[in-house]
Amino acid sequence: MCGHDGRPYRLEKDMSKQLKIQDAVAEIILTEGAASVSTTKVARRVGIAQSNVYLYFKDKQALLDSVYERETQKILATTEIASLQDQKIPLEERVRLYIQQVYDFSLANPDSLTLIQQIKFLRGQSPDLLPNELTPNNTVSQLLQAAIDEGVLKDLPVSLHMSLVFAIINRHTTNLQLGRYPVDKYSFKEIYQFIWDAMKR
Amino acid sequence: MCGHDGRPYRLEKDMSKQLKIQDAVAEIILTEGAASVSTTKVARRVGIAQSNVYLYFKDKQALLDSVYERETQKILATTEIASLQDQKIPLEERVRLYIQQVYDFSLANPDSLTLIQQIKFLRGQSPDLLPNELTPNNTVSQLLQAAIDEGVLKDLPVSLHMSLVFAIINRHTTNLQLGRYPVDKYSFKEIYQFIWDAMKR
Repeated sequence: MCGHDGRPYRLEKDMSKQLKIQDAVAEIILTEGAASVSTTKVARRVGIAQSNVYLYFKDKQALLDSVYERETQKILATTEIASLQDQKIPLEERVRLYIQQVYDFSLANPDSLTLIQQIKFLRGQSPDLLPNELTPNNTVSQLLQAAIDEGVLKDLPVSLHMSLVFAIINRHTTNLQLGRYPVDKYSFKEIYQFIWDAMKR
Repeated sequence: MCGHDGRPYRLEKDMSKQLKIQDAVAEIILTEGAASVSTTKVARRVGIAQSNVYLYFKDKQALLDSVYERETQKILATTEIASLQDQKIPLEERVRLYIQQVYDFSLANPDSLTLIQQIKFLRGQSPDLLPNELTPNNTVSQLLQAAIDEGVLKDLPVSLHMSLVFAIINRHTTNLQLGRYPVDKYSFKEIYQFIWDAMKR
């Protein structure tokens, strides 16, 4: 089977290698910082030639974008979009579900939010250009906007409400990862109350 | 005049050039993202040879650290430490002053918090290793801990309270910079109320 240019499809592309490359990128970001990511380093970690990295990703940015996309897909996979959109559930309860879902996800995948945030920051002041940015956030944005319109939440930009949820939960799970305090020191209820007191009208 | 090794002091070091190098680093971080910072790029922007960058900074990390320190010094310079420590002012009022100071600083220096956050994130999971980390935060940490102990603030880690203040204000001023809404759309009072409702016991 050939592509339109007559060359055979690159069936030799090894998907498990692609995953290994993404894992290596994630590891470098988490241990050395995002500035340290280079195709040379990634290749060394995976044990392949640097030129082989380009078989899977056209450049370093594509590599970072694919890790970003992988992590946001993880969130999407664990988010119960249906319940967030369920009109039969009161808005206040749906906002609580959203916060609970971010919390559960972040506890189970403590590195994911950090990876997402790191790659976002690498883009500097143009976070809007990120691929896939809208997909996971769309339902949440609509939910929060509806809750603002109905007077359930304070009339502030949705982005402020979302930054609040994200920042508090990410800081909390990073603290846990760093061993700053034991997991059972603070319950979800306490973290939720902290967030909710700010958001509620 | 000579140093102990007999070599003349490097009086040819030009402090305005050092500032220009730091400005170039800040500009690259803000426009291209922190991963793009390289001594080659910095030298090109300043119009000097790459080797000359090393006259001022021993490596890329030292360069990033110096920009971090410069930005935190700016915060320190505008913070009225004395009033935050003034026992005659009630704790609740001092917490409000702290929030107001972060807000005013961030409005006047919208890039500073972004630069600090970007350089922090480049360090990956070891944000604690940053130089000068404790200096500007020490007074604030003590203030918030005292307010927690006195039952003025919720009994949650100081780092959660600080992340909240930082995240909300940084998001708000970044929104303003991006032209998402006009400056007068939300008052300090509204932003403060959002933050305070979360923090207060």
